[in-house]
Amino acid sequence: MIVKSDGASLLGSCPLPLIESKEILLGHGSGGKLTAELIEKIFLPAFRNSYLDKLNDQAVLDVNGARLAFTTDSFVVTPMFFPGGDIGTLAVNGTVNDLAMSGAKPLFLSAGFILEEGCPIADLQRIVRSMHEACEAAGVLLVTGDTKVVNRGSGDKVFINTSGIGVLAYDVQISADRAQPGDLILLSGTIADHGMAVMSTREGLELDSQMLSDTAPLHELVAAMLDASREIHCLRDPTRGGIAGTLNELAKQSHVGMTVEESAIPIKENVKGLCEILGIDPLYVANEGKLVAVVARDVADALLTRMQSLPNGRDARIIGEVVADHPGMVVMKTKIGGTRIVDLMMGEQLPRIC
Amino acid sequence: MIVKSDGASLLGSCPLPLIESKEILLGHGSGGKLTAELIEKIFLPAFRNSYLDKLNDQAVLDVNGARLAFTTDSFVVTPMFFPGGDIGTLAVNGTVNDLAMSGAKPLFLSAGFILEEGCPIADLQRIVRSMHEACEAAGVLLVTGDTKVVNRGSGDKVFINTSGIGVLAYDVQISADRAQPGDLILLSGTIADHGMAVMSTREGLELDSQMLSDTAPLHELVAAMLDASREIHCLRDPTRGGIAGTLNELAKQSHVGMTVEESAIPIKENVKGLCEILGIDPLYVANEGKLVAVVARDVADALLTRMQSLPNGRDARIIGEVVADHPGMVVMKTKIGGTRIVDLMMGEQLPRIC
Repeated sequence: MIVKSDGASLLGSCPLPLIESKEILLGHGSGGKLTAELIEKIFLPAFRNSYLDKLNDQAVLDVNGARLAFTTDSFVVTPMFFPGGDIGTLAVNGTVNDLAMSGAKPLFLSAGFILEEGCPIADLQRIVRSMHEACEAAGVLLVTGDTKVVNRGSGDKVFINTSGIGVLAYDVQISADRAQPGDLILLSGTIADHGMAVMSTREGLELDSQMLSDTAPLHELVAAMLDASREIHCLRDPTRGGIAGTLNELAKQSHVGMTVEESAIPIKENVKGLCEILGIDPLYVANEGKLVAVVARDVADALLTRMQSLPNGRDARIIGEVVADHPGMVVMKTKIGGTRIVDLMMGEQLPRIC
Repeated sequence: MIVKSDGASLLGSCPLPLIESKEILLGHGSGGKLTAELIEKIFLPAFRNSYLDKLNDQAVLDVNGARLAFTTDSFVVTPMFFPGGDIGTLAVNGTVNDLAMSGAKPLFLSAGFILEEGCPIADLQRIVRSMHEACEAAGVLLVTGDTKVVNRGSGDKVFINTSGIGVLAYDVQISADRAQPGDLILLSGTIADHGMAVMSTREGLELDSQMLSDTAPLHELVAAMLDASREIHCLRDPTRGGIAGTLNELAKQSHVGMTVEESAIPIKENVKGLCEILGIDPLYVANEGKLVAVVARDVADALLTRMQSLPNGRDARIIGEVVADHPGMVVMKTKIGGTRIVDLMMGEQLPRIC
């Protein structure tokens, strides 16, 4: 394994971020504290409504009797191609998953491309092919689109926004504010695969064992879980900000505490090794094919068994529980028997990871 | 009035575009021939389905009995602030209008921001305020969002994608492929206001009379038109590519010819003057608060009267007719009595106009 001598240099520029910064910082896109600040201080006050206030990754809407999920996500990952996928795969699976996390069946996607002048058309073709394959795999149709071109130096080859519509078949209320003390926390598989795959490609690391992004559509896993039990309170895919970010968001939105067992969180040996060498905490690294579920205690085992029966849930584990103590806070029991608070990250460990 | 000595230099770099270019050119985002080529050769073959094949600016979907319109648009206009609006106003009105052009009542929007590191937060706040005001004015709710940050030099301050959902109340079938010989063509007001407002700001022209963008939501105009008659066959807002682009798209999709009267097309004197000085053809300049309607001949007068009764249709005119001759082609009768073919533009007159 070859790494740059100074691991920290791999992390890009990480100026100490200022709350109340006058300028946008990379950390505002991290899924951590600065992102939360941007949402709370700028977006929510302007647009405040009952849908946005839930701070879910999708809105659930009643339209003429149909119960719909609606979501949007932009993708700016660099490099655009990485082991296990590319920006096109991510753009489809990311939005499919945001729909699925409400319990919806994903149906329709839009695609908005922002292309930089000079981008090789062969790259665009490759990305579009990946999007097509991901749509086929997820059973969704891309039904509307838009393309803009910006001058050389005003973009970075290809940015993609996908928005999506899904339909809720069951009368479930899955939302970040529904975790209750006593609930158990499930994680569908190993963490940090996507982030470290992109990271190792970006930095040109030559590794003994290749990292692969875990990008995958999770709607079938969710459908199987809902078939096993409707007592699923929260679902979220831990992308930017990693599982630390997701658990913090759920704890804060539900005004509950969470305790998790470090030893229960699955991570591949090579991913763990690279994180250690680079000084990156895998709890904060993006995943693109995993979900966190907060479920009623008495259905957790049945759900776990069902998850483990599917490829995308094979390594699922119960990783912790919801408690009434320390509301809004996530506490981890470490492998060596201590405890530590797992907070939102202030700045940005790995910019442009999705 | 002060203009640069060489009018052509105001148009930015316009290399002779190559069909079959190996790289993305600015013209691929023009709404002209290169955009059409990108759609026909790259996007349609990959994603082909009955919704996309219609080449409308929105898809009309049946979801559990509800008839929905779904659309997406990214906004990369430069400068972000211009007389009459800003990128935020455009982002809301543009998507509201794409929904309205199917006959739908716009209901819900998403917003995806791609911010450049270093963008002043005050600019973002101003844009978000504009979006809020535009949402209020259009009666839509912004219900879901996403923010990404890219490194300095990999973006251009603020790009915004909005996607939207509307609901069709009437059983209308408004589509670019429904123009029929004998139909009349209506235009809701003056052309080229938006494009020339952005252009004059971008180039810092000091003009005797200020140009104002026409950005406006058109759903009430469309609702009033549908109230007057359901015999509306095509509706489209002539944004990028101008009315020349829109008429060509409708003629090609419907396999009909169109003839239009130059003298019937309304244009403000100051806009016309600036276009002449800069050598820009106003037929190809973007509008952001106008619509083109192709309607059954016997309802055209009633529709025109209704349009003229509303602020956004005050200057509406019948500008031409649909003919069986020269299918796919738009022919203009000029003021001096000649005829000329109004084709799609090959390259890009005014890049990044929306």
